[in-house]
Amino acid sequence: MGKGRLEAFSDGVIAIIITIMVLELKVPRGSRLADLGPVVPVLLSYVLSFVYVGIYWNNHHHMLHAVQKVNGPILWANLHLLFWLSLVPFVTAWMGENRFAAMPVAIYGSVMFMAGFAYFILSRMLIAHHGRDSALAIALGKDYKGRTSLVLYVMGIILSFTHSWTALGLYVLVAIMWFIPDRRIENALAESRA
Amino acid sequence: MGKGRLEAFSDGVIAIIITIMVLELKVPRGSRLADLGPVVPVLLSYVLSFVYVGIYWNNHHHMLHAVQKVNGPILWANLHLLFWLSLVPFVTAWMGENRFAAMPVAIYGSVMFMAGFAYFILSRMLIAHHGRDSALAIALGKDYKGRTSLVLYVMGIILSFTHSWTALGLYVLVAIMWFIPDRRIENALAESRA
Amino acid sequence: MGKGRLEAFSDGVIAIIITIMVLELKVPRGSRLADLGPVVPVLLSYVLSFVYVGIYWNNHHHMLHAVQKVNGPILWANLHLLFWLSLVPFVTAWMGENRFAAMPVAIYGSVMFMAGFAYFILSRMLIAHHGRDSALAIALGKDYKGRTSLVLYVMGIILSFTHSWTALGLYVLVAIMWFIPDRRIENALAESRA
Amino acid sequence: MGKGRLEAFSDGVIAIIITIMVLELKVPRGSRLADLGPVVPVLLSYVLSFVYVGIYWNNHHHMLHAVQKVNGPILWANLHLLFWLSLVPFVTAWMGENRFAAMPVAIYGSVMFMAGFAYFILSRMLIAHHGRDSALAIALGKDYKGRTSLVLYVMGIILSFTHSWTALGLYVLVAIMWFIPDRRIENALAESRA
Repeated sequence: MGKGRLEAFSDGVIAIIITIMVLELKVPRGSRLADLGPVVPVLLSYVLSFVYVGIYWNNHHHMLHAVQKVNGPILWANLHLLFWLSLVPFVTAWMGENRFAAMPVAIYGSVMFMAGFAYFILSRMLIAHHGRDSALAIALGKDYKGRTSLVLYVMGIILSFTHSWTALGLYVLVAIMWFIPDRRIENALAESRA
Repeated sequence: MGKGRLEAFSDGVIAIIITIMVLELKVPRGSRLADLGPVVPVLLSYVLSFVYVGIYWNNHHHMLHAVQKVNGPILWANLHLLFWLSLVPFVTAWMGENRFAAMPVAIYGSVMFMAGFAYFILSRMLIAHHGRDSALAIALGKDYKGRTSLVLYVMGIILSFTHSWTALGLYVLVAIMWFIPDRRIENALAESRA
Repeated sequence: MGKGRLEAFSDGVIAIIITIMVLELKVPRGSRLADLGPVVPVLLSYVLSFVYVGIYWNNHHHMLHAVQKVNGPILWANLHLLFWLSLVPFVTAWMGENRFAAMPVAIYGSVMFMAGFAYFILSRMLIAHHGRDSALAIALGKDYKGRTSLVLYVMGIILSFTHSWTALGLYVLVAIMWFIPDRRIENALAESRA
Repeated sequence: MGKGRLEAFSDGVIAIIITIMVLELKVPRGSRLADLGPVVPVLLSYVLSFVYVGIYWNNHHHMLHAVQKVNGPILWANLHLLFWLSLVPFVTAWMGENRFAAMPVAIYGSVMFMAGFAYFILSRMLIAHHGRDSALAIALGKDYKGRTSLVLYVMGIILSFTHSWTALGLYVLVAIMWFIPDRRIENALAESRA
């Protein structure tokens, strides 16, 4: 089974998610700068999610680039990932409209955790399908970055009830961690295998 | 007439349907966990529809993979299928917001029945266009799975007025039936033809 | 300049238009069949527009299939067409929610007239770019169907103020005219040129 | 890293932005022509933004056509551009619903300025990646048009507080400037380099 259909469909869904998210920015009634006030936290929430979804698009495309074939279960593992990403617009709006209150921050982190977990499952299934000596298996290695992300999400979810801004800071940290291409780690991993 | 345009357009529409469905999840005003309460049945309804549309994408793509050519009537049979799928976000939200009440469950099943029926028509037209000895005709066979789905939908629609949760269970059963690739039946069908 | 980008972008926009239109179907609050009452005219309106946009997708793709190259002005003639098509969800909802009242029916017809006119301009510009002996010029001929559509729209717009259902009937007539592939006329046109 | 994925994703997002913008046109309750009154400024605002996004699609595609390769930072520069474009539906609706009041006009101009600036950054990064002798570097030259646009936006933003219609006129001027292909300037630039 070719991977082309999976790539095109995933790219389409991710492009739609990143774009319809903006529909959650409700247009205020008044025309003064102050009327934009309630929109600001939703906008900040939107920026964070935009970067997240951008990172997912980026990495998803990279991962599938290193892949030659897919099968039925992989199609569903991919739809599982898209499902959690599809909830991002909802939790983004809920978190923003409640100005980063405890529970919305925790739920936002939970959806991000599930998306990260779904991505992890997908990557493991792709490796299992291509073998431990495949380019993908070598590129991902032990996937410290993926595992660290999941741990940071869990820490953020727990912290959100007492220190919601610290929790948010951890989510931002995950985004930065993926945003900056960490060549040092990649090289280290490459050498450890050489 | 090539099939490429049909595939790309269908994939695009299905990707949009599966994604905009999430816009029906209305963001609650409050920030407590209890405020998410009314969203839960809509979310469950969303999960079911997400799996359904995912199955349609999967099977639609498979079916068209086995096809070489299309014609005008097939284009319209395909648009007929997309029409019923386009109503899925509407009935998903109606069913979820009314916590799986009788009539919404019946209407949900009716739209699913019509989508299943439209898919059946499309498959028969594709077989008629390619001949009874075509790869598609052999792959689909008598299409017991498609026919069983339609019967289960009708049973669900009738039951929804008295036992709406049983009706819903039948819809879930159809989803599971398609979700799990039943190789035993496929092989049996293949042998019965050999 | 290649036509691939124009085709892909137009297909994308048309796929989004035909799908987001369903977001105008507002989910009713109650769960009885009677609660669906106000949705019925919007649904009928939606069916008509779905068929219309489906016809545009079909014909647009056909027309561009017969084309080898595009230029800057053609890109804008195409965006002009997409602009009027993008207004279809709005006028569809307005017409449906007002149960086919005079003014919404007139405005619906006006948007359809403008889309038809934009399509006519686009076809003429494509012919001018490819020459009077091109496959496209021969295929379109004098475009009686396109011209008749525009006349029927104008008649519908005028009639809408006194006989809004007759006006609507004329719009449906245009849809049927395009829906049924009229091979007799095509052959007649082909012979008249032979 | 190939540019195909970047092109397809950007085209998808831009197609979605230009289309979902119409969802901000709120369907009026009444069925008289006068009921469309409040929609008119939103429609005018929509027309301007439709042309703007159309221009971006056009130029973005042109620019990437002259490009052979991309890298990580370029992917993010592109997402940065898409981010500002994704805010266009929001500011379009806010400006239209407030009938081109001072602050919305200023914010609209600011988003347009940022989109123009993001486009400028993207073009410079593409040139840096391909070298000063690349086809892209020669085609863009000193990018007087891009720089002039940014200056006009800043003038518009400042003017919006005292003469909001003049500010709007400047935004329209930028659109016209890009809409009309200015071959004279292009030739002049080409000669100055020859």
